[in-house]
Amino acid sequence: MSLSAAALSDLSALLGERLVLSQAVRDHHGHGESWHGVQAPEAVAFLKTAEEAQAVVALCAAHGVPMVPFGAGSSMEGQVQATAGGLCLDMSAMTAILAVRPEDMDCTVQPGVTRQQLNEHLRAQGLFFPIDPGAEATLGGMASTRASGTNAVRYGTMRDVVLALEVVLADGRRLRTGSRARKSAAGYDLTRLMIGAEGTLGLITELTLRLFPIPEKQAAAICSFPSLEQAVACVVATAQCGVGMSRIEFADRLQMRAINAYSHTNFPESPMLFLEFAGSAAAVEAEIATVRALADEHGGGGFAWAESEEDRRALWKARHSAAYAALALRPGCKGLATDVCVPISRLVDCLVETQKDLATSPLPAPIAGHVGDGNFHLMIVFDPADPAEVAEAKRLDDALGRRALAMEGTCTGEHGIGLGKRGLLALEAGEGVDVMRQIKAALDPKGLMNPGKIFL
Amino acid sequence: MSLSAAALSDLSALLGERLVLSQAVRDHHGHGESWHGVQAPEAVAFLKTAEEAQAVVALCAAHGVPMVPFGAGSSMEGQVQATAGGLCLDMSAMTAILAVRPEDMDCTVQPGVTRQQLNEHLRAQGLFFPIDPGAEATLGGMASTRASGTNAVRYGTMRDVVLALEVVLADGRRLRTGSRARKSAAGYDLTRLMIGAEGTLGLITELTLRLFPIPEKQAAAICSFPSLEQAVACVVATAQCGVGMSRIEFADRLQMRAINAYSHTNFPESPMLFLEFAGSAAAVEAEIATVRALADEHGGGGFAWAESEEDRRALWKARHSAAYAALALRPGCKGLATDVCVPISRLVDCLVETQKDLATSPLPAPIAGHVGDGNFHLMIVFDPADPAEVAEAKRLDDALGRRALAMEGTCTGEHGIGLGKRGLLALEAGEGVDVMRQIKAALDPKGLMNPGKIFL
Repeated sequence: MSLSAAALSDLSALLGERLVLSQAVRDHHGHGESWHGVQAPEAVAFLKTAEEAQAVVALCAAHGVPMVPFGAGSSMEGQVQATAGGLCLDMSAMTAILAVRPEDMDCTVQPGVTRQQLNEHLRAQGLFFPIDPGAEATLGGMASTRASGTNAVRYGTMRDVVLALEVVLADGRRLRTGSRARKSAAGYDLTRLMIGAEGTLGLITELTLRLFPIPEKQAAAICSFPSLEQAVACVVATAQCGVGMSRIEFADRLQMRAINAYSHTNFPESPMLFLEFAGSAAAVEAEIATVRALADEHGGGGFAWAESEEDRRALWKARHSAAYAALALRPGCKGLATDVCVPISRLVDCLVETQKDLATSPLPAPIAGHVGDGNFHLMIVFDPADPAEVAEAKRLDDALGRRALAMEGTCTGEHGIGLGKRGLLALEAGEGVDVMRQIKAALDPKGLMNPGKIFL
Repeated sequence: MSLSAAALSDLSALLGERLVLSQAVRDHHGHGESWHGVQAPEAVAFLKTAEEAQAVVALCAAHGVPMVPFGAGSSMEGQVQATAGGLCLDMSAMTAILAVRPEDMDCTVQPGVTRQQLNEHLRAQGLFFPIDPGAEATLGGMASTRASGTNAVRYGTMRDVVLALEVVLADGRRLRTGSRARKSAAGYDLTRLMIGAEGTLGLITELTLRLFPIPEKQAAAICSFPSLEQAVACVVATAQCGVGMSRIEFADRLQMRAINAYSHTNFPESPMLFLEFAGSAAAVEAEIATVRALADEHGGGGFAWAESEEDRRALWKARHSAAYAALALRPGCKGLATDVCVPISRLVDCLVETQKDLATSPLPAPIAGHVGDGNFHLMIVFDPADPAEVAEAKRLDDALGRRALAMEGTCTGEHGIGLGKRGLLALEAGEGVDVMRQIKAALDPKGLMNPGKIFL
């Protein structure tokens, strides 16, 4: 127990009923959406304001209490497990949209705002926030794990769309990491340092984000290919033509079979690209013509179009259901969701080798991915009660990570390190991990911020 | 003298004739292109390889010798002045383009490669590197100061286009900060930490950069406006329409007068936008139509077009000559070149207040800027022999920085902090500067890497 009676008493005085110690609430906060086991915090603080967050962190610092930030609980690598007990800082009630500035195309929000909440708020103003990791994640959590998703090929990741953060450091200092200027050369990039730090360097209490105009025209399409190689070759060709598609998603045969079974659709069960075009009407038409020609060249079988908002949503709903569809292949089983990202010239090799590995595995593992930037996912479906299956799932995951590293890629494109990929990070970053540790030690010498994550 | 006889002897054994102690070479390396006085290093090392750079840094670390990285000497805020003497690490001979990978649209280069050298090398492959700060800078220097320039509104800054760096830290460790994957969620973003650190955290010995396809069509135009307000309102309107222009540059009346006098051109001497469109032929035509309509609405006087490569180059040559044109207003004088960046909604206010300040100043100071992202420059022309003029130039610079901060902007959009803006950085980042200092102390406890820069 790291939460002493004195600490509890101080926290309780500050938070009243918003300090919760019930087992159910603690257990709920002891896991994300990953396969990692529950590790419950000793208490959960439901925070409301940045000032309060600062006071709570200061109290925890004074009492030596470990802190674990928590948003929607949608993290994929065990980022919210309370490995050292302590206090969970639940930010999900901090849902205020503090300012939207259409002229500057930016906004300032509390960290508990979800991307859907923000986009609903923005719609009437003709603006949107593009980062879409699939889950109904909070923006604070998305910044913490450097989230990206289907739109990243066009709009970048959280790295690119955060203008500034407000952060509370481990010792209770609260600071802004940037201004609202679109670019700056003023000192070290503390904003980018906090993005992807998974709460190990500080607690995000406010975000200033870039927004984008809703494109004049959007059109989505699917196109099936005889082989994975041809589908990916088509993606590479479009990238080289400078076609600025907003989404280029891939699903393999098994994934398409799973989607059809789960979503009661009847897509062709072959390697498939999901595409989205966005821009001015003229630009979209020109791009569609280019991509159609490229798909023909690469053996793509006829486009099925979704131009109406309704059809477009239905198509992306099917794509976004990929993970649930995969799980439904084996009811009662769990999924180990993993992702890697490789240079696009190595994408075919990485996918083919992965499929070869899977062909000899007893576990089904559909592949879906944001292939426009070389990023893909494996959902390894396994029986958590069977130690052999657990071991095999971990073997497949580790082999995939090592395969990506051998191809000059990264062990995770968007899920982060958390608990699950600490070993792979050490392989990937080498001495860089020591540098990360030095930064961690400088800013959080007592190791109170989300301990046990990122570093082995 | 921080360079002991023992250190000199060790360095000389390693570098032979490439360790230079002549006063002329030392003086040349004691300044960039800024108004700050020469502060010469005690010796200059002309480095050739990353291995050699690592060995030299290790020697300096062992002997406690301060190190100042040097590229093309084009920095604008005193980034290369050897404030503590020591050794200048001249990277300008490290000009190898180590790999170009068209399929991945990336390349790996030594830090002394200039952007022009790279773009000449790439042209035959239909690719280009977009960051264009105007000067013939080295890519290592551009990364170190987080450079941007005219193309940033479309392609981002050095922050956005560097995939990975190889860096030698103050203690001689050499490491890679990333992979060739387009995105990654693997641990702290050491790449972004090094970009903009101005050599205070380490020495860049290799860069892996994103490349882009040369657009199918490029067209440039100028358009004059009755007032600064109308010109900027037109810029804001285009941004809100999602028009993806590759360049949106502004020059004020005085700047246009200076350009005409210097370049023997006869542009209208009124507030002017320089625009560049790039993309597929259809997309460019659509965008041109949109921007023409918007310019009409905002009082823009007829476009003058430059569609041929020759005309386009001539137009941008005139724009790029702005700084020299400004200096030519008062032959024999010096220029204090400064830049700020503000949210675009504050750009008119910031420009108008700046012009008001200038109207009461005896010093001419043309304004030119990358207004598409709220960034603009002032070239304050002053007589360095006149203390009153020097003081007035500094006053104007400081007032501009404070004005930008009061408008939620940054004291420098692209020139960096160096020696010149350390006081403004403290105002801008507040406690953030303490965090930067903690990181600096963790990675360079002896303060050997480019001492005296960024921090007061």
